[in-house]
Amino acid sequence: MARYVSQAVIRRLPGYYRHLKELEREGISQISSQELGKRMDLTPSQIRQDINCFGGFGRQGFGYAVAVLREHIGMILGIDREQTLLVVGAGNIGRAVALSDSFPLSGFRVAAIFDNDPQKIGKEIGSIKVQDTAHIALYISENHTDICVIAVPGNKAQAVAEELYQTGLRAFWNFAPTDLKLPGDSMLVNVHLEEGLQILSYRMLHRDG
Amino acid sequence: MARYVSQAVIRRLPGYYRHLKELEREGISQISSQELGKRMDLTPSQIRQDINCFGGFGRQGFGYAVAVLREHIGMILGIDREQTLLVVGAGNIGRAVALSDSFPLSGFRVAAIFDNDPQKIGKEIGSIKVQDTAHIALYISENHTDICVIAVPGNKAQAVAEELYQTGLRAFWNFAPTDLKLPGDSMLVNVHLEEGLQILSYRMLHRDG
Repeated sequence: MARYVSQAVIRRLPGYYRHLKELEREGISQISSQELGKRMDLTPSQIRQDINCFGGFGRQGFGYAVAVLREHIGMILGIDREQTLLVVGAGNIGRAVALSDSFPLSGFRVAAIFDNDPQKIGKEIGSIKVQDTAHIALYISENHTDICVIAVPGNKAQAVAEELYQTGLRAFWNFAPTDLKLPGDSMLVNVHLEEGLQILSYRMLHRDG
Repeated sequence: MARYVSQAVIRRLPGYYRHLKELEREGISQISSQELGKRMDLTPSQIRQDINCFGGFGRQGFGYAVAVLREHIGMILGIDREQTLLVVGAGNIGRAVALSDSFPLSGFRVAAIFDNDPQKIGKEIGSIKVQDTAHIALYISENHTDICVIAVPGNKAQAVAEELYQTGLRAFWNFAPTDLKLPGDSMLVNVHLEEGLQILSYRMLHRDG
């Protein structure tokens, strides 16, 4: 893993992982760069280049061993072990994250949910009881947490993230409609769902262009 | 708009729109490519190049007029008029979409929600009554719909999307954990939320690399 891997390749890794898992489910154990490219809307040479970044996995004329490659990409992504999520905000987005089927399948488990609304504290979401945000630092000191999910209103998100940063957490997945600013040693992914809609809107408007 | 605009520029448009809106809220009416670049993590020359794709908006030494540029990008994105969404699936994701604050702010209005679960049909989500999926074609024939949001389980998504395609709809925003396949004249954005988590996981694992 010493070699340099570009951001573009990194962004494509989850797609590789997903398609390889789908192939496994379909019972396909070998795949050529041509076929994989067709599934992923990439050229065969792009596929070969990407996969070469991580070492030689293909054999001329045999293609890739699906399970081996999927496992290896899982390792590179760090999802070969379960990762725990802490969700702040038990509103609609927090609920959707906590109740999602697809995160557990990708190796992510929601371990705790926090909110400061007395109406929500103590209620269960799936099998998890909503805890009081006041106890969040204590919880983190006692429980291993990999990633914080910020699902609070936009005007609260920065303060919540800073408080979590103070406790030592460094990975943030932000659903609040604001770009968080955190010190350089944090890892932050801002989710802007409405951008997908805007791209769709653009494509509809310019479909004949 | 006759000139060629690359996919990379198109993907950045929603980011421009969001940052310009934020500037307007902050009461900033002019901004240089340097300052805008700092906010958006792009180089000033990248900013100038992107914006030049849409015509000359900057004046040497004056920077860009925030409101004019935001309005123009909104027009390019087709969000200068309200667009209506039809949500299929009244589960957690469908609810989160229907109850989101940020979609209305970006010009998208959820007009209808459908489900085939008798337990959900007739219940209200926000101010919208969940309708029976059996009536979806009739609804579409009587109501203008811009974009379908697919929020049904993975094994139902393809059939639902095909049925909607038959009614003439062409824009699909898919939250089901499967890549939909639709005829080439459809516009499709597959949302894979777990990919954001995987990228975070990768960055945490390789933070010192």
